[in-house]
Amino acid sequence: MKLQHLLAPAVALILLPAMGFAQEAAEGAEAAGEATEAAAAAGFDEIGPYIMTTLLFLIGGFLVFWMAAGFAMLEAGLVRSKNVTMQLTKNISLFSIAAIMYWLVGFNLMYPGEWLMEGYLGPFFSTTSLEPVGLAAADASLDYASVGSDFFFQLMFCATTASIVSGTLAERIKLWPFLIFVVVLTGFIYPIEASWQWGGGWLAEMGFSDFAGSTLVHAAGGFAALAGAIILGPRIGKFAKDGRVVPIPGSNLALATLGTFILWLGWFGFNGGSQLAMGTVGDVTDVSRIFANTNMAAAAGAVAALILSQVMYKKPDLTMTLNGALAGLVSITAGPLDPTLFGALWIGAIGGVIVVFTVPMLDKMKIDDVVGAIPVHLLAGFWGTLAVPFYTSGTSFVTQIIGFVSIGIFVFVVSAVVWLILKATMGIRVSEEDEINGLDMSELGMEAYPEFSKG
Amino acid sequence: MKLQHLLAPAVALILLPAMGFAQEAAEGAEAAGEATEAAAAAGFDEIGPYIMTTLLFLIGGFLVFWMAAGFAMLEAGLVRSKNVTMQLTKNISLFSIAAIMYWLVGFNLMYPGEWLMEGYLGPFFSTTSLEPVGLAAADASLDYASVGSDFFFQLMFCATTASIVSGTLAERIKLWPFLIFVVVLTGFIYPIEASWQWGGGWLAEMGFSDFAGSTLVHAAGGFAALAGAIILGPRIGKFAKDGRVVPIPGSNLALATLGTFILWLGWFGFNGGSQLAMGTVGDVTDVSRIFANTNMAAAAGAVAALILSQVMYKKPDLTMTLNGALAGLVSITAGPLDPTLFGALWIGAIGGVIVVFTVPMLDKMKIDDVVGAIPVHLLAGFWGTLAVPFYTSGTSFVTQIIGFVSIGIFVFVVSAVVWLILKATMGIRVSEEDEINGLDMSELGMEAYPEFSKG
Amino acid sequence: MKLQHLLAPAVALILLPAMGFAQEAAEGAEAAGEATEAAAAAGFDEIGPYIMTTLLFLIGGFLVFWMAAGFAMLEAGLVRSKNVTMQLTKNISLFSIAAIMYWLVGFNLMYPGEWLMEGYLGPFFSTTSLEPVGLAAADASLDYASVGSDFFFQLMFCATTASIVSGTLAERIKLWPFLIFVVVLTGFIYPIEASWQWGGGWLAEMGFSDFAGSTLVHAAGGFAALAGAIILGPRIGKFAKDGRVVPIPGSNLALATLGTFILWLGWFGFNGGSQLAMGTVGDVTDVSRIFANTNMAAAAGAVAALILSQVMYKKPDLTMTLNGALAGLVSITAGPLDPTLFGALWIGAIGGVIVVFTVPMLDKMKIDDVVGAIPVHLLAGFWGTLAVPFYTSGTSFVTQIIGFVSIGIFVFVVSAVVWLILKATMGIRVSEEDEINGLDMSELGMEAYPEFSKG
Repeated sequence: MKLQHLLAPAVALILLPAMGFAQEAAEGAEAAGEATEAAAAAGFDEIGPYIMTTLLFLIGGFLVFWMAAGFAMLEAGLVRSKNVTMQLTKNISLFSIAAIMYWLVGFNLMYPGEWLMEGYLGPFFSTTSLEPVGLAAADASLDYASVGSDFFFQLMFCATTASIVSGTLAERIKLWPFLIFVVVLTGFIYPIEASWQWGGGWLAEMGFSDFAGSTLVHAAGGFAALAGAIILGPRIGKFAKDGRVVPIPGSNLALATLGTFILWLGWFGFNGGSQLAMGTVGDVTDVSRIFANTNMAAAAGAVAALILSQVMYKKPDLTMTLNGALAGLVSITAGPLDPTLFGALWIGAIGGVIVVFTVPMLDKMKIDDVVGAIPVHLLAGFWGTLAVPFYTSGTSFVTQIIGFVSIGIFVFVVSAVVWLILKATMGIRVSEEDEINGLDMSELGMEAYPEFSKG
Repeated sequence: MKLQHLLAPAVALILLPAMGFAQEAAEGAEAAGEATEAAAAAGFDEIGPYIMTTLLFLIGGFLVFWMAAGFAMLEAGLVRSKNVTMQLTKNISLFSIAAIMYWLVGFNLMYPGEWLMEGYLGPFFSTTSLEPVGLAAADASLDYASVGSDFFFQLMFCATTASIVSGTLAERIKLWPFLIFVVVLTGFIYPIEASWQWGGGWLAEMGFSDFAGSTLVHAAGGFAALAGAIILGPRIGKFAKDGRVVPIPGSNLALATLGTFILWLGWFGFNGGSQLAMGTVGDVTDVSRIFANTNMAAAAGAVAALILSQVMYKKPDLTMTLNGALAGLVSITAGPLDPTLFGALWIGAIGGVIVVFTVPMLDKMKIDDVVGAIPVHLLAGFWGTLAVPFYTSGTSFVTQIIGFVSIGIFVFVVSAVVWLILKATMGIRVSEEDEINGLDMSELGMEAYPEFSKG
Repeated sequence: MKLQHLLAPAVALILLPAMGFAQEAAEGAEAAGEATEAAAAAGFDEIGPYIMTTLLFLIGGFLVFWMAAGFAMLEAGLVRSKNVTMQLTKNISLFSIAAIMYWLVGFNLMYPGEWLMEGYLGPFFSTTSLEPVGLAAADASLDYASVGSDFFFQLMFCATTASIVSGTLAERIKLWPFLIFVVVLTGFIYPIEASWQWGGGWLAEMGFSDFAGSTLVHAAGGFAALAGAIILGPRIGKFAKDGRVVPIPGSNLALATLGTFILWLGWFGFNGGSQLAMGTVGDVTDVSRIFANTNMAAAAGAVAALILSQVMYKKPDLTMTLNGALAGLVSITAGPLDPTLFGALWIGAIGGVIVVFTVPMLDKMKIDDVVGAIPVHLLAGFWGTLAVPFYTSGTSFVTQIIGFVSIGIFVFVVSAVVWLILKATMGIRVSEEDEINGLDMSELGMEAYPEFSKG
């Protein structure tokens, strides 16, 4: 991780259009030099693993893409109907911005080793280039996968980080400052911290272990959200003057449940794809373990939250159960391979327990997290990261904590700085009147459910 | 099938926590003995089929997982808005419980041959263990697939059985008794009857044929639902005192349609994955046949129900069309491989016809099936099972009927006993007042659509 | 392309039932002659590509199937609540009809070379037959994929074409005339024009290039919709007497957004599967390129439409953003392989720009396109087709225009004739009263959201 990474943003935004075309020319020249007959000169013993791992990234990637829809539905279901259009707009926009920023700088910032190979374009960073069309086996990284599939898969993780933020800050943040934050988060903050581990950086060297991103993706998103939530402040009416916490129920729990199922489905790709290989007996069997463990952790998180909400509040709570499943998933994400199924069960169950206990805790701290993203992604992410040494040899609790804290501080501080700059310049919060009327009418002039009268 | 299987439940629930940790220790020891270098010493001719079949189970498994979301949306759309939160809670909970119970006892109860291999833990049953991390090719079942992927895939079938029940009993059953029934159904009833066929039991030996589970999954779920529906009784207001049947329309047909599309998509995994192999030309071509036939049967069921509802009622009926598609899918599930596309068309179409004729028939019998699960899963399941000999050589109508009736009696009787015990002990039905107010407010204190005023 | 193709429809509808059974007999005889031991006598070097490409079609096919759900949700979200049940009914029915018609005539009409091989049944056309169960490697097209998987995949494209039409004509067209049009479109119009290119017809020979169907699928659907929209006329109240355009907002933007995400996901299968091969390093790497480019184009289309709607109308517009993403997807569909990521970005972005500019343009022409399908599929489809030569060598702008115009004229004229015949015979438009009351109550007697009172 070099200093230059921290300077890149400013340069990026200025040089953007010029770079695209420069890259274009470079890549064209490169492609022209390639043989087009490609094909299967090499036998399957040689190319089979490359094909299978590439396929893993493609399947994993489209499943994680699907999580963007899951976040959109979850959040649209948990906000009030007057803010649904806005929440949907934020979700599709943040994914789209992530896709562009990760191409523009993120991918090569995160995997610095790839820079020279990949059409280096300036002093600080470079856009992503794919292999030429009809790549010959001789030119492929036969022990890994195609760059295109890898980029496609990794991009989805970057976008997920941003999705986490949008839920926490719902119902009061302005659209454009939020999207500018997403530009910085997906182009720079996430790629930089993720490079510390997955780019072969100092955390990886230190022995930190985060298989699919309990810390790198989920807690990072949670820290960015937390910084925003503190600076933005709670929604009007959430915390009454007498200290009472006023529950603000979501407008559509069917959508929230659909979103949870979508996320659960996508998570098989999230964790399974993070095996990063599927071309050997050992690898495909490991991917199977991961699928089974991921499912178990989610189930255990849901059941734990269901039972606990019954015990604590005498009534089962659907949103707790949904968040319990998600917390189970986040918990197993740092180490979905090594635990037994029973391990996945208790790790996931504790994730569900954490949610039920920490949602009211945040309320007491007067931090308004609309969808519960901080308990689910940050706190269960911490738990998941911490739990790795129970099953994964060569890891230590101390290193896990160091990794989590380092990333937490970095993401929180940089995010806070960005939020504060945005607040000081363009402002991040809608006016009181607009908030009360709902962002849909005040910022967008478009209701999500214009025909259904409100009770 | 041994007597012991029937005694297992009581023991299971007592020994649960102890067992998990015992298993843990056993598995750890096992894993420690394995070489970790694994990798592709063997060539693709040897390992290719294992990798492909494992991948089939992973893809098939996540598609069938997705059916859980489909049932949730279908049922949430077909109940009244005052019961939507409850229906969603039931669906996510039943899936989670199935995931745990199938690990705890179901999988090894269903495939008894695996017991000794898989960490046998007591006199009656055992939890599921996965292969060690980084399995060496030499230690793998190279002619099949990884245990993890097989478990993942089979678990989804178990959960599907439970999903079928929740729809029929909606809007009046209490949450906890329902979930306790799910514990018994997914841990014991389903694994026992499924072991008769898929576990190499007496039905398999007799020549019964049920490729992907028209009887074993769908009709079984339908029989469990039927027993519950009879014991639970109809919803208040469904059957007027003058004998009239009062239609109770679903609250959200967009969700119901979404649920149907999700189920249709998931069914490609359900039937296609049941080929249980994808590593040869013959197998992958067979999976293709199954995909094409499954799609055709669904389409034919939908069109048949659409046309028939127009002819019979002078108005096309969307919910009949949706259930027609599902009935087409259930009908082809017993034999999705052997029929021609034309065979799939007429088998599926008859499934659609069955739905249109039997939905009112159930009403006449005063059995209140909220979503039409009995016509779709039980009756079309019977038809599909019966139709197998038209295309599959070596099968007979008599054996098909024996298999269906045996499983039907077993599931119905055991389910009825469980329902009656639950009724006698904790009660299964909410109070009249709670039912009229809706389960969402009375049992959960949480509305699905709190802001939309009711007409 | 022979004259006979144009005569086929009439014959088809008469001979339908007879043919199915004749086919049945023929296929049975064929299958009986096959060896059943099949299996993997051949090694993976020989069979690996066949297995991988077949798998590509299966995965691609189920993803494109999922697009049918996407269109259903998009359209259900963009119509008024009084027409939602009808829109859902149309969507599930049109897909089902497409599945049957493509089997009955479409597939073999589109790939005429296959006729003799595939159980030729009459002077004009033939239904689709699959390979026998347990196909031996020696009998397989080892350089391609199984017929079953190919049929499954291609069928989904045919259905997509029909899905495009239903959105434009929503809220005023009668159900049955619409479905009869779908019969003609999916059985004949689409297969005939698609055969010109993908069936090795005159456009393919001329050098026209349309990788995954910007013209063949999307613009074709758009032209069929355009013909219908002109003949059907706008909805009551859409164009006020004083010339004002009255916006008619959709009833559920959460569903519309969900639909867009579903379509985006499905599009990876749509474009990626169109590589038609996945068994070599070059092919799987190309599929990766296509996934990455498809995602980029969608993202760029969304961002472009978001920014442009902010600039032009001072408020970001969610439906524009959704349609921008879809237009980006349509734009890249004609050539998703050859562009660089930057190429995909600007091609997709221009697609998004086109939508924002042409939606009001259509309004000025008094063409009422309820969901914006004509801008998205026809106009962005034109742009995508035109853009191919920027990156694909051996193509020319002139040939691209010739191809687009030829298909446009053919589809528009034949569609117009069919619409006019339907109008003259059974009528295509509901009565004024029924339209005002909504099609759900007047044509179906079933509301989508019966409990939510309308504002």
